[in-house]
This record gives sequence, structure tokens and C-alpha cells, in this order.
Amino acid sequence: MTRTKGERTRERIIEAAAPLFNQRGFVGASMADLMAATGLEKGGIYRHFKSKDDLALAAFDYSLTLHRAKIRGQVECHTGAVNRLTFLAEAMAGVAGTPAVPGGCPLLNTAVETDAADTESYVALRKRTRAGMRNLIRYAQGIIEAGAESGELRADVDAATEAAMIVATMEGAMMLSRLYDDRSYAKNAAKRVAAHAAQLARRTSPSRKQK
Amino acid sequence: MTRTKGERTRERIIEAAAPLFNQRGFVGASMADLMAATGLEKGGIYRHFKSKDDLALAAFDYSLTLHRAKIRGQVECHTGAVNRLTFLAEAMAGVAGTPAVPGGCPLLNTAVETDAADTESYVALRKRTRAGMRNLIRYAQGIIEAGAESGELRADVDAATEAAMIVATMEGAMMLSRLYDDRSYAKNAAKRVAAHAAQLARRTSPSRKQK
Repeated sequence: MTRTKGERTRERIIEAAAPLFNQRGFVGASMADLMAATGLEKGGIYRHFKSKDDLALAAFDYSLTLHRAKIRGQVECHTGAVNRLTFLAEAMAGVAGTPAVPGGCPLLNTAVETDAADTESYVALRKRTRAGMRNLIRYAQGIIEAGAESGELRADVDAATEAAMIVATMEGAMMLSRLYDDRSYAKNAAKRVAAHAAQLARRTSPSRKQK
Repeated sequence: MTRTKGERTRERIIEAAAPLFNQRGFVGASMADLMAATGLEKGGIYRHFKSKDDLALAAFDYSLTLHRAKIRGQVECHTGAVNRLTFLAEAMAGVAGTPAVPGGCPLLNTAVETDAADTESYVALRKRTRAGMRNLIRYAQGIIEAGAESGELRADVDAATEAAMIVATMEGAMMLSRLYDDRSYAKNAAKRVAAHAAQLARRTSPSRKQK
């Protein structure tokens, strides 16, 4: 389906706004910044978006969609729960150095910016962030559950908690890597997650071990 | 030493500004917010601080000092490395629910806000944040090194990496707890850190195990 000129302009505005919001935050990205990045006047932007909130939400969705596609792409060319968790952690570590949109993980950025959620704009953005983070945690949880079902992982694994802890560790490490501009924090965290995932695997049964 | 009236006013401004900056961020806390919180006119604030940057740095230092004192207080009434790491993680988890200054961990907040560091104000604030985070990581590292030296922990423990991973895990979990207004993420992370700390302990020697 051919997009109209208006739709193409709308997409171009989102693509230009996304790195600004992801780097500077919702409040930090000013209307002047947005005008400079898009090359449009205020009126030109407002012809396509009701408000700055409206543009911020579209930009957040865009950043999140790109990051999600990149991460899932890196995970889904592997099979097995331990492998997939390992590559999920590595893909998240990659966001610290080469994010799909400049500024790092959009979920981490908006989670921290909107957690007080004391304005209407923040409430709307936090709602999206909660949903996006939940998707990420459930994605990890699904890998673990599939592994428990197939017998690769221990049957008694607490998939929801394990998944949340993987996400917490990787997001915290990404924060350190970005703060110090040093990828080793995220890389070390990915190694930890991989080692922990291996521990969730069922022990080889004694009969097989003895061959 | 008695403080002058000017010094007391300066402190009162910092105490009123700290929760604003910690909740809304450096850019998000506007001059109007600061005036409303302190009950002072712009001129009254600028009599004590050269600029908004100057006040933001003082407020950050204040929030950080209170959090540090609270956390170290909770750690240092315990002895032994495993115990201290356990209570460090618990104290950090406590920041998610009952921070010393509203808004949660000031290091996490400013790390995420300033990581692009594309303005002079952000560069100054990031410098403080880097130093503060380094102090926190080195504090954990010091506990681990003391444990390795006393023989409580394994001698080959990589104290710097372990310390950074504890901080990453707890900061990431605090972020999730604040995003969902649910302390369980931070509590679960503290349990993980405690379990991991116990694994760093030297195995009881066989002779003692057999009694």
C-alpha cells in the first residue's frame, strides 16, 4: 500500500524525534530541539501530532519497536532456553554500546523519567513503559517456561522471578555502561546471566553421565 | 559553630529543592517549581546560588549524602562480608520503597538523565554521579576484599566485578520496583545478592564438615 505524503512526513518527524526523546528525555527535548531536528516549524509538526505528548508517545513506540525487533532477531536465530537466555542478555548488553536508536534502552530511560508520574504526560508515557517492560520480562519468561516444559531446564524454576531478575541485572548494567561509557559492565552482566541460565538447566542424569 | 541566617536559608533551599530534582530530574524541576517549594522569589534563591546548576549540584550532594548515610548505617551494624553484602542489598532495596529523599536512588536518576551529557549542566552533574556511583561500587568492593583477606570469602574472588554486579542488579531492580510501584522486584534482587554472597564464602573444609 502506498503511503500518502502526509504519512511519510509523519514518519519522518517520528524518526527525527525519537533519538532526541531517547537521549534528552520527554521534558529535556524541547520544541526548539524538535523543530531543529525535523526542519519543520511548530505548525508543521502540529499538523501531524495533536501535542508534544502525542509525538513523544509515537517516538517512544518507534524506539521500542526497533529495539525489540533487534533483540528478538538476535535471540530467535538460536534454539534452546539456555542459548536463548544467553543471547537475550548479549543482545541487551549490545544496547549499551550500539542502541537501535541513540540514547540507549528506551524502557530504562522512560521508566526512570516517569516514575514519579506527577503530570498527565508522564502518566501516559509510564503506562506505555510499564506495558513495554512487561513484554520484555514476559519474553524472557516464555523462553524459561518453554525450557522447563521441554525438560532442558529444571521443572521447579520460578520463571517469572528469573525473568525479572535477568531484566533488572541487564538494565542496571546498561545504566553503568552508559554512565561510564564502558561496555564492560553490560558484558560482565551478560556473562553472569549466561552462567546463571546454565545453572537452571537440569543436571545430566547419573546414568548418562557415566555413559 | 553557629550557622549564620544566610547559611540556614541556603540549607532550607537545598532541603526543599532536593526532592524536586530527585523526582522530576534536573530539567523537569522548573524555576517555578523551585520557587513554589521554597516559598522564595527567584531573586531570593539566586542570592544563595549562582545558578540553577549550582542549586542542582548542591541538592544532588544532599540527596546522595542522606542515602549514603542511611545505607552505610544499615550495613555497619553487622559484621562479616556475607552479612554486610546481604544488608547492603537490603538497604538498597529499601530505597525503592522508602528513599531518604523522595524520588528513589539519586545515582540512578541522574545517571539516566545525564548519560547523553550534551549540555554543560549535564556534564557537571554526570561528573558527580560518576564519582558517587564509584564510591558505592568501591564500598561493596571493600567489603568483599576485607572478606577475602579475613578468609571468610574465597581468595580468588573478583571483588571489583562482584561489586559492580551487585550495584547493577540492585539499581535495575529498584527501577522495576519504582516503575510498577511494587517492592517485590527489589526484595527478590536482594535475596539473589544474599544467595550469591553466600556462594562467595569459602567452602567449609572437609575436616570441619565431618566434625
